[in-house]
Amino acid sequence: MQPYEMSLTEASDAIASGSLSPVELTDSVLARLEATEPLHHAYATVTADAARAQAAAAEREIAAGRRRGPLHGIPMALKDLIDTAGVETASGSAVDAGRIPDRDAIVAARLGQAGAVLLGKAHTHEFAYGLTTPQTRNPWAPDRTAGGSSGGSAAAVAAGAATFALGTDTGGSIRVPAALTGVVGLKPTYDLVPREGVTPLSWSLDHVGPLTRTVHDARLVLDAIATRAADGAGSGPGSASRPPTGHRPQDHDRLDGLRIGVPTAYYFDRVDPGVEAAVRAALDHMAGLGAHLVDVQIPLPDAVQATHWALMVPEATAYHAPRLRAAPERYGADVRVLLEAGALLPAVDHIRAQQARTLMRRQWAQLLREVDLVAAPTVPATAARSDQESFTWPDGTTEAVADAYVRLCAPANITGLPALSLPVGVDHDGLPIGMQLIGRPFGETALLDAASTYERTCAPTLPVMARQPAGI
Amino acid sequence: MQPYEMSLTEASDAIASGSLSPVELTDSVLARLEATEPLHHAYATVTADAARAQAAAAEREIAAGRRRGPLHGIPMALKDLIDTAGVETASGSAVDAGRIPDRDAIVAARLGQAGAVLLGKAHTHEFAYGLTTPQTRNPWAPDRTAGGSSGGSAAAVAAGAATFALGTDTGGSIRVPAALTGVVGLKPTYDLVPREGVTPLSWSLDHVGPLTRTVHDARLVLDAIATRAADGAGSGPGSASRPPTGHRPQDHDRLDGLRIGVPTAYYFDRVDPGVEAAVRAALDHMAGLGAHLVDVQIPLPDAVQATHWALMVPEATAYHAPRLRAAPERYGADVRVLLEAGALLPAVDHIRAQQARTLMRRQWAQLLREVDLVAAPTVPATAARSDQESFTWPDGTTEAVADAYVRLCAPANITGLPALSLPVGVDHDGLPIGMQLIGRPFGETALLDAASTYERTCAPTLPVMARQPAGI
Repeated sequence: MQPYEMSLTEASDAIASGSLSPVELTDSVLARLEATEPLHHAYATVTADAARAQAAAAEREIAAGRRRGPLHGIPMALKDLIDTAGVETASGSAVDAGRIPDRDAIVAARLGQAGAVLLGKAHTHEFAYGLTTPQTRNPWAPDRTAGGSSGGSAAAVAAGAATFALGTDTGGSIRVPAALTGVVGLKPTYDLVPREGVTPLSWSLDHVGPLTRTVHDARLVLDAIATRAADGAGSGPGSASRPPTGHRPQDHDRLDGLRIGVPTAYYFDRVDPGVEAAVRAALDHMAGLGAHLVDVQIPLPDAVQATHWALMVPEATAYHAPRLRAAPERYGADVRVLLEAGALLPAVDHIRAQQARTLMRRQWAQLLREVDLVAAPTVPATAARSDQESFTWPDGTTEAVADAYVRLCAPANITGLPALSLPVGVDHDGLPIGMQLIGRPFGETALLDAASTYERTCAPTLPVMARQPAGI
Repeated sequence: MQPYEMSLTEASDAIASGSLSPVELTDSVLARLEATEPLHHAYATVTADAARAQAAAAEREIAAGRRRGPLHGIPMALKDLIDTAGVETASGSAVDAGRIPDRDAIVAARLGQAGAVLLGKAHTHEFAYGLTTPQTRNPWAPDRTAGGSSGGSAAAVAAGAATFALGTDTGGSIRVPAALTGVVGLKPTYDLVPREGVTPLSWSLDHVGPLTRTVHDARLVLDAIATRAADGAGSGPGSASRPPTGHRPQDHDRLDGLRIGVPTAYYFDRVDPGVEAAVRAALDHMAGLGAHLVDVQIPLPDAVQATHWALMVPEATAYHAPRLRAAPERYGADVRVLLEAGALLPAVDHIRAQQARTLMRRQWAQLLREVDLVAAPTVPATAARSDQESFTWPDGTTEAVADAYVRLCAPANITGLPALSLPVGVDHDGLPIGMQLIGRPFGETALLDAASTYERTCAPTLPVMARQPAGI
């Protein structure tokens, strides 16, 4: 196995045992990046020299007995929405082209403190305002979208061109590309991970989180970026406290007593039969490990999309308004029309959406007293063709690709509940399928534990391609 | 002294000692109400027979040794916005004329549990959407406004036609009429007192609180209506927990070490010289008791009125929209135009107001680390004539009466900070002047303590009229 093929956990263990050095790992991942980047276009900026210098510094520190922890010497990609001191952070937009922050976002600083090595900035849909990443191709099939808006982060991890990455998720932008590229994506509980220094799309729906190859990798990254009580929880956005996720869990191979809510509607409506079959097979596997599958009704399903839209769109416009007025032509046409539309939404509709959000939060809280987590598809289909505009569902209806991609992810953005996407198989075209698990507020540990058990006991059913992208 | 002249504290003590019975007190207040009501029009509904029955029941319970506490047998008025089971609750509007709730608002139920006697429902500006109470006259001068929207509650208390009352405050609607009628009005910390069963004006700015003759009276009422941890704090609106305000305080006649912030601008801009002089004299008195007067800058003064407007107006419209569409002609012309205007406000402006609120909250929190409370006039002038439309200030500018009345009160609605108005003198026309004290979140105890010390040590400077309205 080449170092670039390793999961974060494997690489970290190898560094800890001395069988792998940060320089070897970073060189291997950079070589892989050089080979795959012309095919995938995952990166907006590559900082290869700085990465080699950081890896060498990590190697010296570790050799001197000062290993900082599991991320020390591990190469990563950060979505281009995340400020990095001295490194261009353009958020995929001509508006911010050439912008070089003078300080790191809090998450970037925390990862730097943990010793992670920055490979570069990953492509995003312009200002994260879309569910695709037009610059980037899916490592599983070059004619397919990698999803978005964190498509660069997902593609880099899926291809072995980063050992892990950070993305952001306002309506599925971590989970959608994770599902479509066969990696793990975690949208943590709202406010658990600081958003300071991350360009907002819609601050009441925005979340920062990891894209990784395995569930345990996600746990290691979350431990580094989440706010702990000792960090001064409770003041300012992104500073909620949390219970620790814990480190390497016991190897529980059972899920006895775990109550998994399986939605009877909404999450399985207008879903590709292959996706539904893979998710139901994964749930059957979990039931075989002792979990109880419980039929549940999702709160206010008819209000999800309107609520998400009426929260997000005017918040995005409020943020961009001064620059949109000054130079509208610098925005891409698709983003510009959304920002201009946001200026027309009445306050009363935004207020109704806030009321609906309050109701949804209460009803999801009630639902999550009856079950421990909710399981569903992450995305209703595998990766669309890059030029595809809509899906046609078995019931004969059609749906825009962006609407379909946001549909099953938006409830966890509206409610702020933690949600994880993990691979549960491939479809008849060999494209990855993601299952979404939604947990209680600050219930990341339980969510990761359940996902880990699934992954560990069911991994043999996944083809090697899940770690080894095709097309290269 | 007639029983109707007593403060709540005096009446409660007299009942406790057996020198006054609830029936005597209620009969005295009802007789006063009958005499003053033709002059003041404080009440929308009077429930005299039910009140006598409740007083008789209280008398029996107390005689049997089962006195419930300081409010047992005390006659009160509730603003007509507050639901009362079986008693018409019309919110001053033809829209709700004849509406008889089948259950009490939580605050009404809590006062009923405490043994208070309901005299009736006090007039309000239609749906509390105004700073006057057109139905009601000021007991100090029949050609003057009592202020609003809780003008009926304030006039009843000022006239001795209720021993205490409840009002609601979205932009000063407790504090303004308290100041203009010479009584004490307390707007508690946001969410400390439950709003359930109280018709909303703007739920993110609405507060329920007492109007009383003395500061200690306000403490007794707050103790009965505020949510305690044992009531299940933390779930749902109006359910914040709180430290107890404590019962009868020690008779501290000193304010040593108390840091009182005195705004250098905004709160003393465009203020009648007589009002300013009275407030500064009160502050000098408090300094004489050992308080330190500290010049402070109020956060974002230029944003206060726009922020308050952009928060309130669309929330009010969102609440009334279905009925406004169905029968716009049933609303008064002034309220209808405000509700229709609210439909036009863009979401982006509402969002900017929410951002401004967040900034104001943070900056007020910082300010209230430097001082213990902030003191200022409650209203920039004494009661306007009923037909008066604007004030002309010493600097030559003019201002609409409603704008002037909301101006100094709105910051505590936006921030949710507790704020109290107490009488500090009368102007050259013999009209009452109110001083406003603004405290820390859930800092009602400190606020009431400081106000009590002022009241107790400075009361001789107030004319008897403060308790004995003229014109009758």
